[in-house]
Amino acid sequence: MSDKVKHCSDGSFCFSSGQEFTLENGRHLRSLTLVYETWGELDSDRSNAVLVHHALSVGSHATSHSKNPEPGWWQDIIGPGKAIDTSIYFVICINNLGSCFGSSGPLSLNEETGELYKGDFPQITIGDMTASQKILMDELEIDKFYAVIGGSMGAMLSLNWAIEYPDSLTKLILISTAYKAYPANVANRAIQHQAIRMDPQWQQGNYESSAELPGFKLARKLGLYTYRNSSEWNRRFNSHNNADVKEIDIIQYMEYNADKFCNVFDANSYLILTHSMDLFNVTETHESGKGCFSKITARTLVVSEESDILFTPQQQEDLHAALLEGGVNCRFVVHRSQYGHDAFLVESEPFTKYIGDFLNARDGDPEPDYI
Amino acid sequence: MSDKVKHCSDGSFCFSSGQEFTLENGRHLRSLTLVYETWGELDSDRSNAVLVHHALSVGSHATSHSKNPEPGWWQDIIGPGKAIDTSIYFVICINNLGSCFGSSGPLSLNEETGELYKGDFPQITIGDMTASQKILMDELEIDKFYAVIGGSMGAMLSLNWAIEYPDSLTKLILISTAYKAYPANVANRAIQHQAIRMDPQWQQGNYESSAELPGFKLARKLGLYTYRNSSEWNRRFNSHNNADVKEIDIIQYMEYNADKFCNVFDANSYLILTHSMDLFNVTETHESGKGCFSKITARTLVVSEESDILFTPQQQEDLHAALLEGGVNCRFVVHRSQYGHDAFLVESEPFTKYIGDFLNARDGDPEPDYI
Repeated sequence: MSDKVKHCSDGSFCFSSGQEFTLENGRHLRSLTLVYETWGELDSDRSNAVLVHHALSVGSHATSHSKNPEPGWWQDIIGPGKAIDTSIYFVICINNLGSCFGSSGPLSLNEETGELYKGDFPQITIGDMTASQKILMDELEIDKFYAVIGGSMGAMLSLNWAIEYPDSLTKLILISTAYKAYPANVANRAIQHQAIRMDPQWQQGNYESSAELPGFKLARKLGLYTYRNSSEWNRRFNSHNNADVKEIDIIQYMEYNADKFCNVFDANSYLILTHSMDLFNVTETHESGKGCFSKITARTLVVSEESDILFTPQQQEDLHAALLEGGVNCRFVVHRSQYGHDAFLVESEPFTKYIGDFLNARDGDPEPDYI
Repeated sequence: MSDKVKHCSDGSFCFSSGQEFTLENGRHLRSLTLVYETWGELDSDRSNAVLVHHALSVGSHATSHSKNPEPGWWQDIIGPGKAIDTSIYFVICINNLGSCFGSSGPLSLNEETGELYKGDFPQITIGDMTASQKILMDELEIDKFYAVIGGSMGAMLSLNWAIEYPDSLTKLILISTAYKAYPANVANRAIQHQAIRMDPQWQQGNYESSAELPGFKLARKLGLYTYRNSSEWNRRFNSHNNADVKEIDIIQYMEYNADKFCNVFDANSYLILTHSMDLFNVTETHESGKGCFSKITARTLVVSEESDILFTPQQQEDLHAALLEGGVNCRFVVHRSQYGHDAFLVESEPFTKYIGDFLNARDGDPEPDYI
């Protein structure tokens, strides 16, 4: 193992580049740290690696392993015999740059000041995140992934990866995402950002504790609101016919979820990561405009969730159309459920099929029909 | 004209009951004031009156008239030769109880303290609003409306009216509404309420000026976000391919709208009126449960907006189903556009057809086909 990588007691790895990392906006991080976890064994010809890109609010712990038996955020999808089969693939999940679960971010030490970055951590982009991961991949001497897979914000990384490093992957899976920031999403995130910043306890990001920030909790509640379809809210609460009881339950549910989240997530990271989505437009950062999609050589699967009010079905259709226009070999699956944006995180059975079938598929196999 | 009604210089009327008004929650208003406007002439047999119920954020000025030429909130729908034809009908629109445009509400004088109510105005219900209007109707000696019409929150009043006073109307038009509060809407409004209340300048409702409340502006931005479909946001902003420009424009657009709104609307009224929707369940307040719909004798039109993410198409379908189950003679129109919840306020041409056709229709006329 590279001497730049340390093995931690919880089974995660910590990569420190020891070199300056230059961001798209021209600012520098004096060094780069990325925390990651792996499952399965890399085969002798290094051809069975799968890169999983996590979404906004989680980290590298995608599924459990012997040193950390806690269930991961994609516990039912990744593991031996599961859709992303760790008895076949060597799976790696890297905590995104800018996040708060070990990788360089607002909770890191700013070596120039000797203090934590907090509100001074520079704004990063989706491109910065993938560029940081490429450095780690080179260090691990993985030239080509069998697959790169992401959902939501994670799939923005996957898409950017496939355009930036087209020879480094065979298959690409993009779930509930978009190739650029859409106005309604920018509007929604701007409201969340204002909720955080208008809170007097925010103090320009130099707050004591994220868990004590009412504005951050409010932002998370608005996030939660958009992750669910109204049918899902109905399923959860419509049995109460009494308006007062229903309202109290709904408020308590949001409060519980916001408390849980703000106890573990950092508000500065939340601002930086959500804003990186505002800045994302894969056709803008790659100079050929929409022609950038033609760079993709990977066989691609796009999964759209019909009840998603955040990354709407239209956004998936736009993505699919752009991929087809770029000549990409692309499969398009429309998933139908009541779970909204979060469907890929909660509905393991259908997503096991979509992902498993696509990973197993060989050239010439017929398209599966899920309807 | 009744001596309880004063004619104001802007052409509106001000009704003061001079009597105590008891609310559903048992609290009392020492007297009741309602501001209203009328258009057209009441015919000799008093049979051509149309009651228009306004939505959350507007008032009695539904359309212009000689004493107030300012365009009203339904300018293109109400007027001579328009869908609600003021050369045929005597149209009345009453500022809702609890609102801030003249009727009893947080900006009224609390006769018990000699000061404005502000944050002490009691929480009212949709039922309180219709009950207050019934007192005015009796004063004006209008026994039966040709039609009662409302959109959004206004249609909650219209629906409640039709169940509470079934003999007082011939036709009922319900646009983009629901017969009860749905969990996703309650959640969304709870976030807005918290945004207002977490603002230190809020001061338990005893703020100096609504226009200076960042929390109230934030709440309005979230409201605005839900009134538009994402396609509408696309239409407005997607021409900017540069992410920074797009974001600045979107934020300015929300800022402009929130400023405009908070300059004229009162934050306490906003809390009370939005919360009255949380408390609304027409099957709960009428003891027969869903059987309450069978009380409706009016011919009814329900208009659903397919792109509405607030009062979703499912909510209109539920309403339509409940009306049919109650044996109501009901026409159901699904409007398709990109305008979301606000469609009935901005798309005058199709809504002129839906409303005009229904008002003109006689028993036995064939159902129009708008597809």
